[in-house]
Amino acid sequence: MPSQDVPQIVIERLPFYLRGLEHMANRGQRVVSSQTLGEWVGVSAAQIRKDLSYFGEFGKQGLGYEVTYLRDQLRLILHADRDWRLILVGAGALGSALVNYLVAGQWQYHIVAVFDSDPAKHGKRMRDLYVQPMSELEGVVEAQDIDLAILAVPADAAQQVADDLVRCGVRGMLNYAPIRLNVPQGVHCAEIDPIARLQGITYFL
Amino acid sequence: MPSQDVPQIVIERLPFYLRGLEHMANRGQRVVSSQTLGEWVGVSAAQIRKDLSYFGEFGKQGLGYEVTYLRDQLRLILHADRDWRLILVGAGALGSALVNYLVAGQWQYHIVAVFDSDPAKHGKRMRDLYVQPMSELEGVVEAQDIDLAILAVPADAAQQVADDLVRCGVRGMLNYAPIRLNVPQGVHCAEIDPIARLQGITYFL
Repeated sequence: MPSQDVPQIVIERLPFYLRGLEHMANRGQRVVSSQTLGEWVGVSAAQIRKDLSYFGEFGKQGLGYEVTYLRDQLRLILHADRDWRLILVGAGALGSALVNYLVAGQWQYHIVAVFDSDPAKHGKRMRDLYVQPMSELEGVVEAQDIDLAILAVPADAAQQVADDLVRCGVRGMLNYAPIRLNVPQGVHCAEIDPIARLQGITYFL
Repeated sequence: MPSQDVPQIVIERLPFYLRGLEHMANRGQRVVSSQTLGEWVGVSAAQIRKDLSYFGEFGKQGLGYEVTYLRDQLRLILHADRDWRLILVGAGALGSALVNYLVAGQWQYHIVAVFDSDPAKHGKRMRDLYVQPMSELEGVVEAQDIDLAILAVPADAAQQVADDLVRCGVRGMLNYAPIRLNVPQGVHCAEIDPIARLQGITYFL
């Protein structure tokens, strides 16, 4: 069902629909209208219906969506129905916060190794992981068949790290450095930039 | 020039155009085509032209954009031409990483106070700030005329913190908790959720 033609922005909204549905399912809610789900996510009911229509027919006219059914369908679409092993590059304050967040949250994304180029950080413990040198990257990615990485490194190091990750076979990267990464087709990057988000807020102020 | 009718997604792309232009200006580049800027940002040339057309005429047909001129215009549009004081709520590992990032980066967003509900954190030093109890929030926001806050608190605390911030007069929030905040009209929230971004990547894998 998923198609190459789905706009990026639609794909980026799906996780928020999923989060809303998970919240409702946990509360025991069985059915939700596109109106109510839209209010929860902050988009219009029409937008939700249009976004979901790229992937099939999920609701019944006038009856809304079955919460757990739509939740499970979105998990399938986002490949969030399985566990993912990922590595973290960058063992600074941000990297440390991310390890805590991912371990504590019991998400389906599991950090299995942490790397840093700074020898002073090698061997440092982060939860039940020990920071490894970059020279171990390739071996770990291959041995553990890693597809995903989080980059929590400075901007001037990020492209080199991305190149290393691509060479090792990593196909998805979540980048916290305020720089756009150049990666070959077939490698997917998302970026988290708090400054850009703050500017998107101050536009309105 | 900025209008209420500009789609949210357009506003969210502007900071990335700005970041590209700042990068080019720092390298001494004087003119850029929408094609080249688009490649830098990862959108099409047509998208850039359409997005910018909401705000005026910035380029000359066939000549492209003057880098510093467009940079300065985008700064004006995003209100990124002035300094902003902001507060941070949540002095855990993430909060600590954010303070480091914002201080080190010399952005125009300046954290002037840090708050936490945990008495064990009160008085803890973060760069040149000391963590304060939530009871000090209102006084600080009023005394320093704060418009912006970053929430780096757990999901189950975020709505209460947002309510407190709204009551104190904060009009913009960057929320790191994986929950959608309910705020009154006129208060603007942006959200950073690494799990949602990872799901947006694994869709493609």
